[in-house]
Amino acid sequence: MPRYESADKNYIVMKLKNGYNVGIKISNIQTINKIGNHIGEDTTSVQSLDNTIKGERHKYEYGNEVSKVALISTGGTIASKVDYRTGGVTAALSAAEIYASVPELSKVASLDPEVLLNEYSENLKPEHWSMIANKVSEKVKSGIYRGIVISHGTDTMHYTASALSFALQNLPIPVVLVGAQRSSDRPSSDAALNLLGATVFATKSEFSGVFIAMHADSSDDLIACHIGTRVRKNHTSKRGAFQSIDVMPVALVNGDSVNMQLQRPALRLQNRTNNTARFVAKPNFDKRAVLLKYHPGFDPTLISHVRLAGYKIIVLEGTGLGHVGRESFQEIQKAIVSGTMVFMTSQCIWGEVRMTVYDTGRDLLEIGVIPLSDMLPETAIAKAMWVIANSSTVEDRKKLMQQNIANEMSNHVPYP
Amino acid sequence: MPRYESADKNYIVMKLKNGYNVGIKISNIQTINKIGNHIGEDTTSVQSLDNTIKGERHKYEYGNEVSKVALISTGGTIASKVDYRTGGVTAALSAAEIYASVPELSKVASLDPEVLLNEYSENLKPEHWSMIANKVSEKVKSGIYRGIVISHGTDTMHYTASALSFALQNLPIPVVLVGAQRSSDRPSSDAALNLLGATVFATKSEFSGVFIAMHADSSDDLIACHIGTRVRKNHTSKRGAFQSIDVMPVALVNGDSVNMQLQRPALRLQNRTNNTARFVAKPNFDKRAVLLKYHPGFDPTLISHVRLAGYKIIVLEGTGLGHVGRESFQEIQKAIVSGTMVFMTSQCIWGEVRMTVYDTGRDLLEIGVIPLSDMLPETAIAKAMWVIANSSTVEDRKKLMQQNIANEMSNHVPYP
Repeated sequence: MPRYESADKNYIVMKLKNGYNVGIKISNIQTINKIGNHIGEDTTSVQSLDNTIKGERHKYEYGNEVSKVALISTGGTIASKVDYRTGGVTAALSAAEIYASVPELSKVASLDPEVLLNEYSENLKPEHWSMIANKVSEKVKSGIYRGIVISHGTDTMHYTASALSFALQNLPIPVVLVGAQRSSDRPSSDAALNLLGATVFATKSEFSGVFIAMHADSSDDLIACHIGTRVRKNHTSKRGAFQSIDVMPVALVNGDSVNMQLQRPALRLQNRTNNTARFVAKPNFDKRAVLLKYHPGFDPTLISHVRLAGYKIIVLEGTGLGHVGRESFQEIQKAIVSGTMVFMTSQCIWGEVRMTVYDTGRDLLEIGVIPLSDMLPETAIAKAMWVIANSSTVEDRKKLMQQNIANEMSNHVPYP
Repeated sequence: MPRYESADKNYIVMKLKNGYNVGIKISNIQTINKIGNHIGEDTTSVQSLDNTIKGERHKYEYGNEVSKVALISTGGTIASKVDYRTGGVTAALSAAEIYASVPELSKVASLDPEVLLNEYSENLKPEHWSMIANKVSEKVKSGIYRGIVISHGTDTMHYTASALSFALQNLPIPVVLVGAQRSSDRPSSDAALNLLGATVFATKSEFSGVFIAMHADSSDDLIACHIGTRVRKNHTSKRGAFQSIDVMPVALVNGDSVNMQLQRPALRLQNRTNNTARFVAKPNFDKRAVLLKYHPGFDPTLISHVRLAGYKIIVLEGTGLGHVGRESFQEIQKAIVSGTMVFMTSQCIWGEVRMTVYDTGRDLLEIGVIPLSDMLPETAIAKAMWVIANSSTVEDRKKLMQQNIANEMSNHVPYP
């Protein structure tokens, strides 16, 4: 294999037949025998992605009696390959290339691919959420799609899923974000199976709304489909990194069958419909919101900085049931008095904020901090940016933040 | 029951025989018949805690042929009770009261209780970490204890455990932090079993070091003992809220038996010893470190604020493998150039930072951001405050941050 820029010069790397690479220390090599010539394809071609789908391979014709699904590409690992110059992964494949590389897709849906962005998701900003929302809105309003799949980098895919959950209301069809933890030319890539699972769910889900579809675990069988506001990237590298928080995944996809999971009655899931009349897009976001994570030794001047910088909303990631140390009370109160709203989430991730249990919580309620039940901090910051853009008074914003719009508060516990 | 301040005036609350309370809507009551007089104890007395321990009850004499264990009380729910004026929980029980309320403890150890603090842990600051470290150091140096148990609020118990793991090096005996998720006068309280489990582990663990002992799950059998730097509060209210991250718990305690768990060879666990000679306390912390969580729409001026405020270390909680959007690159570089070190952890919680995989990571390495492997963000901020106080040059701090001191980097992957 070509040597990566940063690779140890005392090793050579060989690609094995199973697709994995192995490094051999040069000083340990006793003899080198030439056993033949390399016959094969360019390892960076899209063909290699195809190899990751197990089992018999067939040729399918596109566009038979299958549903139409829009595929919007925004970038990320699902659309990337390894760069042998640096050993790193760079964005590469277009939506059309992805489509061509997973022939099984054509049995499931007639895909209509479009490249909207080519960014790793750590570079996506609220402006991009608006772009994506507008594009989805256009596709939904056309009325010709059974579902929409969005390929997306995994780093902030759950933030985007939350943002779209608020921006796209009363969706008639499923909008399914999908990514990959391993690039498509690696033998352990999850790109093909995730895309296939997302497309199957987009065509067969009985519910509409915004979802994320990713490997359920490290096995190559199950794709889990999560509610867009209730999911988190909980591992840096595992294929089963995305997990539903405080709820079950909505569905597990195995091959081309979709198994809807029993949900708690408190969850509100909308049935899909052919009627696009009720669909409303509110695609604007306002960045004047900030997420601050509390920790021992937290500096209250961070809050004054945010207040003076003209922010409209602070989302605190407090400890436990929704606490911060009393040293920060004064600055929080100042922020609230001067019109910067302060909301509380928990860094525990699982469970809900309950601020009436302890003195600390009650004192914070007294000051005017508003608890957000079991809303995830990542969901809360996306919602805050949406709320600022879609309402103008403090009272309206308070009401909207506490209103359960897209299952972001799975327990429906309203603020007293 | 007395009515809480904030309770609905249309309901009355009655305590059932099983200890739970039930609310009855007054308008639904048809008749009230007096069936007898209440005979019993004050519900706020420590006796009620005793009821939470299941099974046969015996009277044990204190101080028989058992080990001596120091019990340092710092506050929190484990030392609290419900206040019927407000319905909330307030700190109440002293170490001595806790000890008296769990008679089983005397079979395990001769406890030597001392009240050091009475604070909910969200109010604990690095100054308190120093106080606790000094107190533990004094107890360790006395050479008379088989182990040390510290009762602590759960909100920041993992931050304190990390801080102590750096401050107390080559500990000859186990130092076990323990808390409760439910106050001791509630029938579902975990206070008694957690304290018993922590004490059993403190006397029987084959390893020394800093640990957290809490319910392993929702059952009332198992106490899990976690490495102090590798544990996180992952649920706001469940009794099994604390979880080891990327490693197994060190031990499971069932009754008075301790089952040590098989650990990955990469972990360094020290065997307990009677020799206190190698023990070193470095109890100082310096608060000029800040933890910033990245999110889409993150404002780079937060970084400039921190730089201008004279901070020495910024710990970033990046996305995925350790990324932030390129909009923040310039401010990060400015911070590093002006002497504020920037370290990278991941908000994914599980897995490790790997910054050579993607362009974004490599660009950040180029700027001078230093990756912290699988160190938890909460552990990293505690370590940063300790490192600033215990070294004076940027080079020393960089080295110390990347040196695996207390299993905070479980994979031992050094910075290239």
